[in-house]
Amino acid sequence: MTTPNQWRHPLMPFIDLPDVQSSQSTTRFKLTRVGVTGVKRLIPIQRPNKDHLTYLNVTMDLFVDLPATQKGSHMSRNLELIARLVDTHIQTPVPDLETFCATTADLLLTKHEYATYSEVKAEAEYYYDVRYPSGEHGSEPCRLIAEARMRRGGEIHKLIGVRVLGMTACPCAMEVVRSLDERTKNCPAPTHNQRNIGTLMIEIPSATSPVDADDLITIVEDSFSSPTYSLLKRRQEAELVLHAHDQPKFVEDVVRDMLKKVLEKYQKLPDDVLVIASSESEESIHKHNAYAERITTLGELRK
Amino acid sequence: MTTPNQWRHPLMPFIDLPDVQSSQSTTRFKLTRVGVTGVKRLIPIQRPNKDHLTYLNVTMDLFVDLPATQKGSHMSRNLELIARLVDTHIQTPVPDLETFCATTADLLLTKHEYATYSEVKAEAEYYYDVRYPSGEHGSEPCRLIAEARMRRGGEIHKLIGVRVLGMTACPCAMEVVRSLDERTKNCPAPTHNQRNIGTLMIEIPSATSPVDADDLITIVEDSFSSPTYSLLKRRQEAELVLHAHDQPKFVEDVVRDMLKKVLEKYQKLPDDVLVIASSESEESIHKHNAYAERITTLGELRK
Amino acid sequence: MTTPNQWRHPLMPFIDLPDVQSSQSTTRFKLTRVGVTGVKRLIPIQRPNKDHLTYLNVTMDLFVDLPATQKGSHMSRNLELIARLVDTHIQTPVPDLETFCATTADLLLTKHEYATYSEVKAEAEYYYDVRYPSGEHGSEPCRLIAEARMRRGGEIHKLIGVRVLGMTACPCAMEVVRSLDERTKNCPAPTHNQRNIGTLMIEIPSATSPVDADDLITIVEDSFSSPTYSLLKRRQEAELVLHAHDQPKFVEDVVRDMLKKVLEKYQKLPDDVLVIASSESEESIHKHNAYAERITTLGELRK
Amino acid sequence: MTTPNQWRHPLMPFIDLPDVQSSQSTTRFKLTRVGVTGVKRLIPIQRPNKDHLTYLNVTMDLFVDLPATQKGSHMSRNLELIARLVDTHIQTPVPDLETFCATTADLLLTKHEYATYSEVKAEAEYYYDVRYPSGEHGSEPCRLIAEARMRRGGEIHKLIGVRVLGMTACPCAMEVVRSLDERTKNCPAPTHNQRNIGTLMIEIPSATSPVDADDLITIVEDSFSSPTYSLLKRRQEAELVLHAHDQPKFVEDVVRDMLKKVLEKYQKLPDDVLVIASSESEESIHKHNAYAERITTLGELRK
Repeated sequence: MTTPNQWRHPLMPFIDLPDVQSSQSTTRFKLTRVGVTGVKRLIPIQRPNKDHLTYLNVTMDLFVDLPATQKGSHMSRNLELIARLVDTHIQTPVPDLETFCATTADLLLTKHEYATYSEVKAEAEYYYDVRYPSGEHGSEPCRLIAEARMRRGGEIHKLIGVRVLGMTACPCAMEVVRSLDERTKNCPAPTHNQRNIGTLMIEIPSATSPVDADDLITIVEDSFSSPTYSLLKRRQEAELVLHAHDQPKFVEDVVRDMLKKVLEKYQKLPDDVLVIASSESEESIHKHNAYAERITTLGELRK
Repeated sequence: MTTPNQWRHPLMPFIDLPDVQSSQSTTRFKLTRVGVTGVKRLIPIQRPNKDHLTYLNVTMDLFVDLPATQKGSHMSRNLELIARLVDTHIQTPVPDLETFCATTADLLLTKHEYATYSEVKAEAEYYYDVRYPSGEHGSEPCRLIAEARMRRGGEIHKLIGVRVLGMTACPCAMEVVRSLDERTKNCPAPTHNQRNIGTLMIEIPSATSPVDADDLITIVEDSFSSPTYSLLKRRQEAELVLHAHDQPKFVEDVVRDMLKKVLEKYQKLPDDVLVIASSESEESIHKHNAYAERITTLGELRK
Repeated sequence: MTTPNQWRHPLMPFIDLPDVQSSQSTTRFKLTRVGVTGVKRLIPIQRPNKDHLTYLNVTMDLFVDLPATQKGSHMSRNLELIARLVDTHIQTPVPDLETFCATTADLLLTKHEYATYSEVKAEAEYYYDVRYPSGEHGSEPCRLIAEARMRRGGEIHKLIGVRVLGMTACPCAMEVVRSLDERTKNCPAPTHNQRNIGTLMIEIPSATSPVDADDLITIVEDSFSSPTYSLLKRRQEAELVLHAHDQPKFVEDVVRDMLKKVLEKYQKLPDDVLVIASSESEESIHKHNAYAERITTLGELRK
Repeated sequence: MTTPNQWRHPLMPFIDLPDVQSSQSTTRFKLTRVGVTGVKRLIPIQRPNKDHLTYLNVTMDLFVDLPATQKGSHMSRNLELIARLVDTHIQTPVPDLETFCATTADLLLTKHEYATYSEVKAEAEYYYDVRYPSGEHGSEPCRLIAEARMRRGGEIHKLIGVRVLGMTACPCAMEVVRSLDERTKNCPAPTHNQRNIGTLMIEIPSATSPVDADDLITIVEDSFSSPTYSLLKRRQEAELVLHAHDQPKFVEDVVRDMLKKVLEKYQKLPDDVLVIASSESEESIHKHNAYAERITTLGELRK
């Protein structure tokens, strides 16, 4: 453990220190976001449906706005706030990352009395439960994305999202292969397949009933040509390949299938809920990627 | 040079091939963006104020929207378009990267007759001319950012931006040092200083008179505590340090100084021009970064 | 939870499946390393000196060599091994990451009966305890690096390393400032300072008494001009700045100070222990970095 | 263009400045590598077999060793050297990146009279000529890797390497699919295929006849199941898929095929030439990658 106190400077009196941040700004422009980025913390999470505590290795950004009259934001307050919260949560873990973001966004407006807006972004590796094709239980990694935004006096908006790896098999090349080679007409035909990055994010007002990241992961995995697994024996590899070739998909299909499943799953959520779905395919036949995206609301999708 | 023709498949007749993309989508949702990402090309650029051709090593994303009725976008058309454009520009180089993006966005809507919107993003390393403190001429690297957006029948919007490395020295720690150590009261006092990433982007309608990336670089460099150089001898290093300590700046100051200079430089540009300015400081006294940002219009800034 | 069994293919008989990997290689070259990279797992760790369990979010590479006669390595065995180990360690957590690597390297040679060599690399974010200058306790992030290497019939070699962020203040610019500006002669003079990445790795035979990563972190932090903290109030920021300016250091100094402390700390370790120390300074006055490195053995250092 | 001279400090006399680097080191350890990393420069290259000049956007590391007696390396000399070289090469372009590295390594030992060893590493995006399956000519991006190493009084060793993207189709899953589904017995059977990163590096003594990076690219591309292209129409996509499924390959096969082609191509190179070949497959059915590597000499391969 490092002990920095040995380097307390001998000349240091206990005086009133200048507060440069609070001085007047000479260039009077307000700022949209001022804060800290890349803050790393280990945050204990107790998922409502799990019996044991886990830890998320979180990377965070914290911002407030700044009025035109003030020179600087007191950025150390952001770190104090995070330190207190993490300490508190060691006793009473948070249920999920977006709740942590929402609590932080709320407290940022208390700490920065001059701010009218706060924003917190967080990302972490997350390990979700899977049953492997072998029947064994295990876990696979994905990326958890959470955000919270708040205007002073308004409601907090929380975003919860997941980024999951899966597989897509191209329907176009498969059909063209079939028309070029008669032998593949009535059987599983080869096509190019590849790793696909599926992302699904949902933003809800804080008062709305929560969205579970595990449900989003299921939606994304079910929208690929096939989910993928770290643990596959030979037969299971071949079965996964055949399964993926049974439902070939463009990136466009992956996004639309996510949207369809979101509509079915979240029938009770209000129209103004924001939905962002994307699919990026690391094309095996190209050096570049294919990409599709929809940014919309539940209301728009219901039309 | 690779010669793929040797593997033309023996069974291949010349028949009408299936066009799976043009088939009807069974899940009828329109998509916001469909296209390709991470396309790399070497693009010849002839800057208006330079006598010689240069090459930008560009990474691009190209998108159009997709109507609810159509299964897939014809992504190979995006690559054909880029191949033709690069061929053409070997004869007649483009003046700048944002013009290349605008031309591409325009042609995307011609190529994808079903689309109503197109978008092109491009980034490249760019080497700008500097006079080193020694008086010698040289060049320093920065990041060039360009985008173009177009609605069918509407005007193209072009964004041109730069990301430049510089240095900031903290005004707060400097003042506190001065109040703690009397000896530093009337002389350059130490403070923490660090690498800063300054980003400035301006989006203009295509018909507007162009914004020169070199001017944006000058604005960003002049907004740091000091620009930085690869070539510095001992005396020049010390001079640069003193120069930076003469004008200590928060990230907030860097952004506001950029905004002030943008207002002065672009007095003739219209009110609806979009301006995005940010400063990220890789804090030497922290493991996280400090960040400030303003997203606004010239009209807002002029109020 | 995804349930892949629904896509078990209807045509699948229970037959002997081909084992392509075990077939003869037609191009008879042996291979140095064959395996999997980028495997992610959450690994429970019970540090000997801590009272509670923690989790490391580990990214791993696992390799064995491959004889000239065999076509392929059975890579799924690597993942089976990791799955079993992680399951086991939920009951009995490992004491440290390098022990996990060593156990894995050992088991790889059991699983791959044709291999003569195994190698495991792992990295994880790690949060070490600090006492902040305010006196409060907290934690700071660093990077933990572990490796294990084994020849069949030989001893396992374990590497344990840390990558820590800190701060360096340049002694050269400080002296030149002092000779240029008389007022800074007898007081803390400004210089450029910046974020520094200190890396220290030690490789020991498995039977040797263990090296504690926390000790390596202390050595690296004590070799900077100053360690850095997420939590600093104004006075503490200024104190840290003055502390760093009291001991200005080149990257060369950081590496040499690490080596000196390694010699003092590990007097009982044998001569053939490998030591790798490096310091990379993200220069505030340049866009490039400064770097120094020593790759050596304790025996060499003792000469 | 920035003009830093305005901030020449008013107090600056023209005096002898302290040379802190040349002072004695108090911690007397020699260092293996001291220098600068991440230096970016645009370097004009005139390939012997091409009619026009091109530019490589190069990122470089430059190192020398440092004796135990000296406190610091004069790092600004590294940048002066690069500035001079780039200026010179605008008049007389270098034929290739490894020659640039070798010249630099040689001059580093002249500039740093106290050093006994120098090392230069460089990487750049490179666009190689291809004939697309359509018959059209174009270019595809890859990564060029060059290094040079020199001991004072000894010969320079140059490394030239390429990192190329291609495609592999798995032979194991293909055979298992065939044994599970009778219909695929006598026709192209599906398997998982994916993007593959092939790397081939050759280190030769400087006096040896040069190795052409374009030849290395051809070797790597010919060792994949198939090379990949940005420009593919529907028929060509399907043909490429069938071609790749005609020659399914493990990462092990890719590496061994590279080694075989290296042996054939470089029969006249001496036994002590270093060869490093690797293949990393971004598995479509897993979230992790598969990897194979051989580090060897031509002499070893010839046995």
